[in-house]
Amino acid sequence: MSGEHLPVQLSQPFVWPVRVYWEDTDAGGVVYHASYVRFLERGRTEWLRRYGIEQIRLRDQQNILFPIRDMQLAFRAPAILDDELVVETRLAQCRSASLQFEQRILRGGERLLEASVRAACVHADSFRPRQLPDDLFRFVPRAEVT
Amino acid sequence: MSGEHLPVQLSQPFVWPVRVYWEDTDAGGVVYHASYVRFLERGRTEWLRRYGIEQIRLRDQQNILFPIRDMQLAFRAPAILDDELVVETRLAQCRSASLQFEQRILRGGERLLEASVRAACVHADSFRPRQLPDDLFRFVPRAEVT
Amino acid sequence: MSGEHLPVQLSQPFVWPVRVYWEDTDAGGVVYHASYVRFLERGRTEWLRRYGIEQIRLRDQQNILFPIRDMQLAFRAPAILDDELVVETRLAQCRSASLQFEQRILRGGERLLEASVRAACVHADSFRPRQLPDDLFRFVPRAEVT
Amino acid sequence: MSGEHLPVQLSQPFVWPVRVYWEDTDAGGVVYHASYVRFLERGRTEWLRRYGIEQIRLRDQQNILFPIRDMQLAFRAPAILDDELVVETRLAQCRSASLQFEQRILRGGERLLEASVRAACVHADSFRPRQLPDDLFRFVPRAEVT
Repeated sequence: MSGEHLPVQLSQPFVWPVRVYWEDTDAGGVVYHASYVRFLERGRTEWLRRYGIEQIRLRDQQNILFPIRDMQLAFRAPAILDDELVVETRLAQCRSASLQFEQRILRGGERLLEASVRAACVHADSFRPRQLPDDLFRFVPRAEVT
Repeated sequence: MSGEHLPVQLSQPFVWPVRVYWEDTDAGGVVYHASYVRFLERGRTEWLRRYGIEQIRLRDQQNILFPIRDMQLAFRAPAILDDELVVETRLAQCRSASLQFEQRILRGGERLLEASVRAACVHADSFRPRQLPDDLFRFVPRAEVT
Repeated sequence: MSGEHLPVQLSQPFVWPVRVYWEDTDAGGVVYHASYVRFLERGRTEWLRRYGIEQIRLRDQQNILFPIRDMQLAFRAPAILDDELVVETRLAQCRSASLQFEQRILRGGERLLEASVRAACVHADSFRPRQLPDDLFRFVPRAEVT
Repeated sequence: MSGEHLPVQLSQPFVWPVRVYWEDTDAGGVVYHASYVRFLERGRTEWLRRYGIEQIRLRDQQNILFPIRDMQLAFRAPAILDDELVVETRLAQCRSASLQFEQRILRGGERLLEASVRAACVHADSFRPRQLPDDLFRFVPRAEVT
């Protein structure tokens, strides 16, 4: 750990399906742009859950939250009602106090959105930065780290 | 107080303006039905604020929340993007552990939605019902009570 | 059809799972009340989809929308982050120009919310009421109708 | 116009107030990160409205929409329930077929979020790029252009 950058890359992105409902669309006839931000968060949450990490337990038992610090979004094409999308999530870098994700939203083979997202690790009660707990790193299997 | 129903009626509804943004609409070209539920909550929040009640202080200093228990909604006509609406809020009844509101959403003179909403008074940490604090009643001016 | 009430009841409710994400919660620490309204709509949408009805095609090919006309909600207990809920959807009555649903949201065996929802059938371009197309009724299997 | 970049800078940002409601918060006790994306859109919408541009008329009468193409967000500090925020909006650059905005969200003097947002100009029915109409430029007063 030691505060250095820990270069971590998943060989395979984690894939999570998302269905588009009325709630996600707007009067332009397509998915509202902030809805994709919600979809991305579902992808990161399910990526954590795959490794047995439930954020409510992180918050209640370890006083940890992962608020978003930076986000870059490139919208390529719009999704519409009833679309079946997938959110791809890849941990690009694991620093001492933050996680850098690369994410994409696709419909079939078509890339609709690309995102780069940095989540900080903070104390849940104060929102002050803190080191990622060592044992949290264990959830990233060696095989997936380059 | 004494656990009895305290019949309380505001002679005049409290009026709060709401503008319709893209975020509030859906691909049907109109306001998404759950967005009106958010608008109603803004009306009740601002009604409380008019009497000096900030819910974050209620939660942090008195451990009080007002979760919704029952809600009846009648949708009369749809609102659309850029509409300027008003939310009317009227305290219909003040019980020992809940508040009953009558609310309407209008565009100009046109009634778009009518709602009846009951909010319970609970302990913020346990969500268990509790009596409304006596001093909370003071915010309803005598002149507005029939 | 003939404009009469067509008593229709599904013997078994249709069950759809919903996971609670950060987007669904509020600073009270529980699911925001309007989020349940979104969950209910997912249940109705997936109930339609089970019978091969995609609402985007209804809108684009048959000029039909199903806006909500009336909704009664009884909130029994709060859901929290990471909860796995199920939405139960049951068509209670099929009228000539509207559909009446009974819905519930549960966590395990616990009933969190009960809802009664009436959706009208309207022309998508004018929002004026129209008769339900006869062939739409076919999607309700005889075995499920009492 | 001529397809060239038209360097445009407002000397003063346009300021729009936003109040934080329950709907905007999450179980972390702060404003949900996607809610700021909605706040930014309100700022841009009201900036347009100041110049007499209503997007529903743009869509219905001129077949124009301004979907988001790129967005960079830097979250500095969290907002909480009941906060009174302001959204600052500044048109940074006006290209032939897109608008580049610089935006900030502040609470008092404190900078909570900085954003850079590019909105494309498209045909509302096809989402294909199109030139910004010449007369749309007129809404930017000369005094505000450097």
